[in-house]
Amino acid sequence: MTEPVAVVGIDVGGTKIAAGLFLGDGKTVFERTVPTSQESAESSIAQIVELVREAVSRAPRGTGVNAVGIVVPGWVNRGARTVWAPNVAGWDHIPLERRLAETVGLPVVLESDRSGYVKGEAWLGVARGLTDVVFLAVGTGIGAGILSGGQLIHGQDDLAGAVGWMALNPAFTNSYAEVGCFEAEASGTAVARKGLRHLTAFAGSAPVATDVFRAAEAGNAEASRIVDEAVLYVAMGVANLVSTLNPGMVVLGGGLFQQGEALVERIRAEFVRWAQPFAARRVRIELSALGSRAGLVGAAALALEKRQVVGC
Amino acid sequence: MTEPVAVVGIDVGGTKIAAGLFLGDGKTVFERTVPTSQESAESSIAQIVELVREAVSRAPRGTGVNAVGIVVPGWVNRGARTVWAPNVAGWDHIPLERRLAETVGLPVVLESDRSGYVKGEAWLGVARGLTDVVFLAVGTGIGAGILSGGQLIHGQDDLAGAVGWMALNPAFTNSYAEVGCFEAEASGTAVARKGLRHLTAFAGSAPVATDVFRAAEAGNAEASRIVDEAVLYVAMGVANLVSTLNPGMVVLGGGLFQQGEALVERIRAEFVRWAQPFAARRVRIELSALGSRAGLVGAAALALEKRQVVGC
Repeated sequence: MTEPVAVVGIDVGGTKIAAGLFLGDGKTVFERTVPTSQESAESSIAQIVELVREAVSRAPRGTGVNAVGIVVPGWVNRGARTVWAPNVAGWDHIPLERRLAETVGLPVVLESDRSGYVKGEAWLGVARGLTDVVFLAVGTGIGAGILSGGQLIHGQDDLAGAVGWMALNPAFTNSYAEVGCFEAEASGTAVARKGLRHLTAFAGSAPVATDVFRAAEAGNAEASRIVDEAVLYVAMGVANLVSTLNPGMVVLGGGLFQQGEALVERIRAEFVRWAQPFAARRVRIELSALGSRAGLVGAAALALEKRQVVGC
Repeated sequence: MTEPVAVVGIDVGGTKIAAGLFLGDGKTVFERTVPTSQESAESSIAQIVELVREAVSRAPRGTGVNAVGIVVPGWVNRGARTVWAPNVAGWDHIPLERRLAETVGLPVVLESDRSGYVKGEAWLGVARGLTDVVFLAVGTGIGAGILSGGQLIHGQDDLAGAVGWMALNPAFTNSYAEVGCFEAEASGTAVARKGLRHLTAFAGSAPVATDVFRAAEAGNAEASRIVDEAVLYVAMGVANLVSTLNPGMVVLGGGLFQQGEALVERIRAEFVRWAQPFAARRVRIELSALGSRAGLVGAAALALEKRQVVGC
């Protein structure tokens, strides 16, 4: 087969859907983002079908489109082949893979967004070519995509990577019961909430994590304490992933890492106190290279693999 | 190939070496344990060669012996094919696999003991037939063997499962730097050490973890506090493995679990507070069925797989 290969990637989010047409060498031919329909599952599925068709139509002359990869912000049940995504209207155990495969006439592969992130970074991002990588996403929530020995870790019920539930402090509090200890202490949401509670300057406002980081930079002691605490918990979470999985790289992404390299550097300095020393020496801790495109690129990477399996 | 299959399993420890001849259906034909030579690598390797030859000689008439599986208490570097085991005299990056394969003339497969434990339980133990299993060993130290999607998790440098280094308390102390937070708080060694420090009855003696559990049962409040703390930390560790890996079962083994089902039941009751709720509902937490034989059975399971790969 000498025909050049192209695949479609789709990254579904609660607020927007991104689509792209990628060539086998990683070049992007087409990329488009639309706001996610808030109406019904039918309407957002129709948006996806439309985006796939548009992407396919952009394929260069003589290039066959071989597969579609889709990543979604929720639970992809690989046994039942259904998707549950609480932030997408009506996506309550919908048979998305079958629906799309029938409609667009191409093989479709589905994964969770966090699995997409790690596949994206391993294909075209900072973890290019590595087989053992964890993508730790710290934003509104906390989750991880895990690649081990070149394979995505799914777990028995496709729930693996729910690391926002990591227990990092034996002093249990009620907030841990709602979203998990790690997420309650270190997500962007948690940093903002702690800011609102402890910083008088924020009284009556709706601060986001960035506001707390700015206040810390401006010398506010209470804000600094909140940032220090977030650094400590993220470093502990990174250390636990390193000791348990011995990855070659942990990629840090999500809203909190809009703070960039300075925050990553603090986590690098702190995590080594906690992690298994040999594994700590062998791992690199890096900022996501793809940022908000990690999921889209990962979806394309998954499609490319699917196509290679189908083709053999 | 209609000839019945047999494999040799070897479990190397710092104090003893166990050997067995297993049939493909799991029946044990022969089993023997000898004290590990404390002399040199040459002498313990000679012991292993002798045990393999004896096991092979016990094969029933008409049964071919196809492979040898060995599990070791240390680091199996699968790239360099060497073994480093600090508790076995002279085992400093020795090329054990090649040495044995040459001497005994059979395919040899090598793994860490913790990988052996999980393979053993998944073959003939409490996790029979499951593809997603964690064996958490809590004894002198703490480590885990991880099976995910039917595959052992090795990590980039074969260091995965070093969960004794899990960070479970943000208040760092010096003992965490030596053996890791989880191990410093909840290993058998840690429970005994806390007993010696806090129980006046133990002054001048050398208590083991069992002594602390007995004192707690006898109503000693300080001993009860130490046991409660161990339960809490083990439950947090179990929860972190469940949230991260979504296994179908966590098998609990090692010296601490000589306390049996009563201790397991306390951990079951505690871990659900911490783990991702869906993953927690789907996992079973069980006592090792194979106990001190888990490594030996796992070594045989690994040999059986090796033989199947060679045979195809």
